Amino acid sequence: MKINDISYRGVWLDADGWSVRIIDQTRLPWSVDIPRLVDCADVARAITTMQVRGAPLIGAVAAYGLALALRADASDAAMQRDAALLAATRPTAINLAWAIGRMLAVLRDLPASARADAAYAEAGRIADEDVAQNAAIGDHGLPLIEAIAARRGKVRILTHCNAGWLATVDWGTALAPIYRAHDRGIELHVWVDETRPRNQGAALTAFELAGHGVPHAVVADNAGGHLMQHGEVDLVIVGTDRVTRRGDVANKIGTYLKALAAHDNGVPFWVALPSTTIDWQVDDGISEIPIEQRAAEEVTHVSGLADDGVVRSVRVVPPGSPAANPAFDVTPARLVSGLITERGRCAASAAGLLGLFPERG
Amino acid sequence: MKINDISYRGVWLDADGWSVRIIDQTRLPWSVDIPRLVDCADVARAITTMQVRGAPLIGAVAAYGLALALRADASDAAMQRDAALLAATRPTAINLAWAIGRMLAVLRDLPASARADAAYAEAGRIADEDVAQNAAIGDHGLPLIEAIAARRGKVRILTHCNAGWLATVDWGTALAPIYRAHDRGIELHVWVDETRPRNQGAALTAFELAGHGVPHAVVADNAGGHLMQHGEVDLVIVGTDRVTRRGDVANKIGTYLKALAAHDNGVPFWVALPSTTIDWQVDDGISEIPIEQRAAEEVTHVSGLADDGVVRSVRVVPPGSPAANPAFDVTPARLVSGLITERGRCAASAAGLLGLFPERG
Repeated sequence: MKINDISYRGVWLDADGWSVRIIDQTRLPWSVDIPRLVDCADVARAITTMQVRGAPLIGAVAAYGLALALRADASDAAMQRDAALLAATRPTAINLAWAIGRMLAVLRDLPASARADAAYAEAGRIADEDVAQNAAIGDHGLPLIEAIAARRGKVRILTHCNAGWLATVDWGTALAPIYRAHDRGIELHVWVDETRPRNQGAALTAFELAGHGVPHAVVADNAGGHLMQHGEVDLVIVGTDRVTRRGDVANKIGTYLKALAAHDNGVPFWVALPSTTIDWQVDDGISEIPIEQRAAEEVTHVSGLADDGVVRSVRVVPPGSPAANPAFDVTPARLVSGLITERGRCAASAAGLLGLFPERG
Repeated sequence: MKINDISYRGVWLDADGWSVRIIDQTRLPWSVDIPRLVDCADVARAITTMQVRGAPLIGAVAAYGLALALRADASDAAMQRDAALLAATRPTAINLAWAIGRMLAVLRDLPASARADAAYAEAGRIADEDVAQNAAIGDHGLPLIEAIAARRGKVRILTHCNAGWLATVDWGTALAPIYRAHDRGIELHVWVDETRPRNQGAALTAFELAGHGVPHAVVADNAGGHLMQHGEVDLVIVGTDRVTRRGDVANKIGTYLKALAAHDNGVPFWVALPSTTIDWQVDDGISEIPIEQRAAEEVTHVSGLADDGVVRSVRVVPPGSPAANPAFDVTPARLVSGLITERGRCAASAAGLLGLFPERG
């Protein structure tokens, strides 16, 4: 999608044909920086520091990271070490393990001399498939929005965090149906949760929507329940970092609170995901999905543009007070109206998922 | 209560015997500034700009504001004008209208020459009664904490916004039972919601608790549901800006989301209030209580201490994106475990409230 009328993907090969380019999302929306990643350590650091984030994008970037690693050393030992390093960069996103596993399955039995080229090719396929999947998610989510538009005209949609094109290789997951609907001329208003502590809603989703011309307003994470009580939200669409076999949804901390409010007010709550986000090994998301505890500084400090034009971090919690920072929560399937995947929509249940993905039965 | 071992109230008369002192809460926790208010306009500005905030404290400060107004001009016309000016400074807090109404009832039939002295005396009574009421709220809330402590030892309590002594003349409402329990030696851990967009939890509640030595941690507003899902919260206590006759609770935006999560996880959700906060004229809080829409800048900008030691405001929403800022929400009585008042605890219902306040029947 576009920034300042230039089209980008979330990850691409540099013109040199081997190094990897990303958009540094820690600098957005204030600055569009395009770091060049030249080795596996660069990629691991980009993921850990959240220069790239969003489950689908992390998977594609990690795949390119393994290609860079194999370019330097394609031995079995190095490949296993670097794959483990990349897989350990973030604990919650299932796409990361999926992408590394897919790469290893292709590469394992190849001679070392053939591995780097094969890894670049496979990483490219992972990226292209992500784009196609997200376009399909947009197509399958579109009818939900069209149905509301037919009933009442303007459609008011709330989203949490950033599940837009910046979280994927292109299109996004939760935002893909929104972009499709906007392009069809449906009148939209998107409520963008700020998404503390890292403010990906305010910094990234708002930035994306403004770039594409979609009307929206940023609200504090606290506001969504009130908006739903007063009939100001027709639909909630969020992304996810991991969906369990029975339809529990791990996503950015605070998603569960919005799902509760949607359920209490009869507002449909949909989750958009590529099927790579489904963890078929896990049933009970609340007890089984490990939740990443991130640094207290993300809560105690906020980064933004100061009036002197410098991006500064300011402390918002007094120095004598500690902070805790669980980064994700799990929304139980009973609160989810349904899932939007690249194969279509389904109920958030084992039966619903197996209906779309019978090969997992 | 104390800041740096000096005891303060939320509002008091200066040593000159007529001007009014407050703690500028927009400067906390970085600086303890004590502005001197010399006329009605000063007081109105202090309330509007939230130098003083918290429903009980606003009422007491407005009462002193009317005393300052009458010192300048005690005519009927001026008294009505200034009372209306003060009553219009904030739309949601019922205590404001209550305090102004109580003042006018005392003053209306007095000769103009007697009004200023009577107004100071009545404002002093309002302040002293608030302190006594909050101490009683602490006593009535304490058994809830003692019962949990007897069962499991350490008690983990979540609170939203600031309903501590800084929101009242002294003691606080939601924090009064916490201070009482801490002083009794009960082991506590308080989860402090940051409370975007104005961050009163991070800036004021954390500051208060640290000053009093109560163990606590600040969390993003998004975190509470996850903490409750994982059994990390034994009790929620919040304050309120207005309680309806049937027990609906208007409080800082986001309170409703925490009440939903508490209900979903079987965590008791209590609301602490002086009875002046009850609006006996209103039943349905969601449809009948006007919700203040505050400036978008509270969402688009965050204020904090920069690393150069200067308190700075940084922009967190890109300039091309608007923001919306509803300041309160209403938690329906069905989600409230009970109310803690100066007369005791009761169910959040008309029957419960009338049991404690039969004179309203």
